[in-house]
Amino acid sequence: MTDTHAFAPQPGRIMAGEMAEQPAVLQRILDKGAPRIREIAAAISARSPRFVLLTARGTSDNAALYAKYLVEVLLGKPAGLTSMSTTTAYGARQDLTDCLVITVSQSGGSPDLVASTRAAREAGAITLAVTNNPASPLAEVSEYHIDVLAGPEKALPATKTYTAELLALYLLVEGLRGGDGAAAKDLPELAASVLARHDEVRKLAERYRFAQRLVLTSRGYGYPTAREAALKLMETTYIPATPFSGADLLHGPLAMVDNVSPVIAIVPDGRGGEALQPVLDRLRGRGADLVVIGPQDQVDAASAGFALPAGVPEEVQPILEILPLQQLAYEVTIARGQDPDAPRALAKVTETH
Amino acid sequence: MTDTHAFAPQPGRIMAGEMAEQPAVLQRILDKGAPRIREIAAAISARSPRFVLLTARGTSDNAALYAKYLVEVLLGKPAGLTSMSTTTAYGARQDLTDCLVITVSQSGGSPDLVASTRAAREAGAITLAVTNNPASPLAEVSEYHIDVLAGPEKALPATKTYTAELLALYLLVEGLRGGDGAAAKDLPELAASVLARHDEVRKLAERYRFAQRLVLTSRGYGYPTAREAALKLMETTYIPATPFSGADLLHGPLAMVDNVSPVIAIVPDGRGGEALQPVLDRLRGRGADLVVIGPQDQVDAASAGFALPAGVPEEVQPILEILPLQQLAYEVTIARGQDPDAPRALAKVTETH
Repeated sequence: MTDTHAFAPQPGRIMAGEMAEQPAVLQRILDKGAPRIREIAAAISARSPRFVLLTARGTSDNAALYAKYLVEVLLGKPAGLTSMSTTTAYGARQDLTDCLVITVSQSGGSPDLVASTRAAREAGAITLAVTNNPASPLAEVSEYHIDVLAGPEKALPATKTYTAELLALYLLVEGLRGGDGAAAKDLPELAASVLARHDEVRKLAERYRFAQRLVLTSRGYGYPTAREAALKLMETTYIPATPFSGADLLHGPLAMVDNVSPVIAIVPDGRGGEALQPVLDRLRGRGADLVVIGPQDQVDAASAGFALPAGVPEEVQPILEILPLQQLAYEVTIARGQDPDAPRALAKVTETH
Repeated sequence: MTDTHAFAPQPGRIMAGEMAEQPAVLQRILDKGAPRIREIAAAISARSPRFVLLTARGTSDNAALYAKYLVEVLLGKPAGLTSMSTTTAYGARQDLTDCLVITVSQSGGSPDLVASTRAAREAGAITLAVTNNPASPLAEVSEYHIDVLAGPEKALPATKTYTAELLALYLLVEGLRGGDGAAAKDLPELAASVLARHDEVRKLAERYRFAQRLVLTSRGYGYPTAREAALKLMETTYIPATPFSGADLLHGPLAMVDNVSPVIAIVPDGRGGEALQPVLDRLRGRGADLVVIGPQDQVDAASAGFALPAGVPEEVQPILEILPLQQLAYEVTIARGQDPDAPRALAKVTETH
């Protein structure tokens, strides 16, 4: 990787390469990863966890949030995202009997995730790590491990490991509820068709070249996408991009939208999109610049957008929604004369304790 | 309230009045609210909940996050924040036996909170509402209710109900663990001493009059303060203010800091502050403009700041930390020629479903 950087043949080459790998990674998970995920799900299911806790940071935290929706909606179990410092800084000793603790991490190397997972195991939890590195300390310390099979990730902005984590977590929850994961089978092909429309995203990127701020919003299954898109945009373009659930946006931050802040709405094709409708109407009524990632009719009613394929079950739409937004982060960064492969100050494994 | 606005005698008069009420509200909770909170805590405790779920939106969601830290650290029980749309949009049916579901809301009137709490009760949860209105639909639908006794809140940016919710939730968790809540007894007096230093905050506000963006960071108990300060700043000044846990900041968004984005760090005097130290060092090393709300020595090591009283137990520090940040939002708004009492497009009860 240092060699690659030293020659710097083309800005963003590493990130672009990894974005393009996503259909192949999704196919690999369906072909090679799914049987093992099913086995692990069956083993965990037999132990009847009652409560699910998810632990992660950064991009993986957005994948964890997606899994939280799946657990609550598809599995009907209460779930929570861990506040890691309660264990690592305050030494909280919780009774985690009957809890499934899922730790999600690309590298599996962050010391605080390892410490928090070890503490969870000692506190009686069933522990499962979802990582891109089966030889990692996190995989080691967890009772179960799912490999997301994305291959080495060299770009600093994570892309292929995010969609790989989403699919692995979807298959896990399907396994836990005895489903067959059929909703995922066309995703590799659909992802390829979305990524092939890179030119549309390049056109969309022109609109944000000089933007000083961005607001992202969604509801339901699309909300983790809004968060991940905001993170991706911030870490590559440095534009302050703030994600809000549609309901929270109406509570106050709407005051900062108006014509001042362009809005990107991720509109799920389904109940999440229906719940977001009043927010979209309100934004349009205020004259906001509204770009929609979602169904064609929602794109047509907005200032601009990117239409996603129709007929995809809502719970797996996030695996497609993020693709044009990754490309958008990449294109806006290039348009601003920066290198998506070289964000300032970003380290691949964050050594927080 | 319409009358008040019609005359608009002085921008921000309503918000200023309610900020100033906070010491009296805290005293009222300690004197008149605490016995009832203790009774409710004893009744809930007798039913031995194993998991705690917290449901809220906007400012109250930040109070709920504070309670999540208390539950995990002081009570040793796993906790999670509810993703409300899983119930209200997707109709998720969860088994909530042994779960305590705490819904926090100033008005107690948001239909989605009422629906979500009703669903939780039907799903077997012990339900508790924490509101500023005992006659509200939310109080009605919940099995238990705690009144935060803040008196009518007329300003659109919530201030006194936030600190009232924090104190009520602290006393609740103390009650649940059989503690006496002694850490809270000096808070009214300390709050008055902090609020009396409004001139220091006015000075600090000069620095942000022309700011295009702000980053807020903290760890542990201080993290809800970072989130609430960001929300308050956004809804009054319209500056995009992004809150990050210190650990997450190092994962990527640090790229957008440098000299471009001023940083406000809430530094708890205790383990949260210790855990934040590497982040502060890194920010200083990058030449960031760093303002600290925290202990005197941390303020001295920063670009500027506001020193909080020493010797306050870490778990109740958030009730003081937010005070200068509320005043900061107020002062920056005034400095920018806007009216803190009249944010664009903000409604007091948000009617999301």
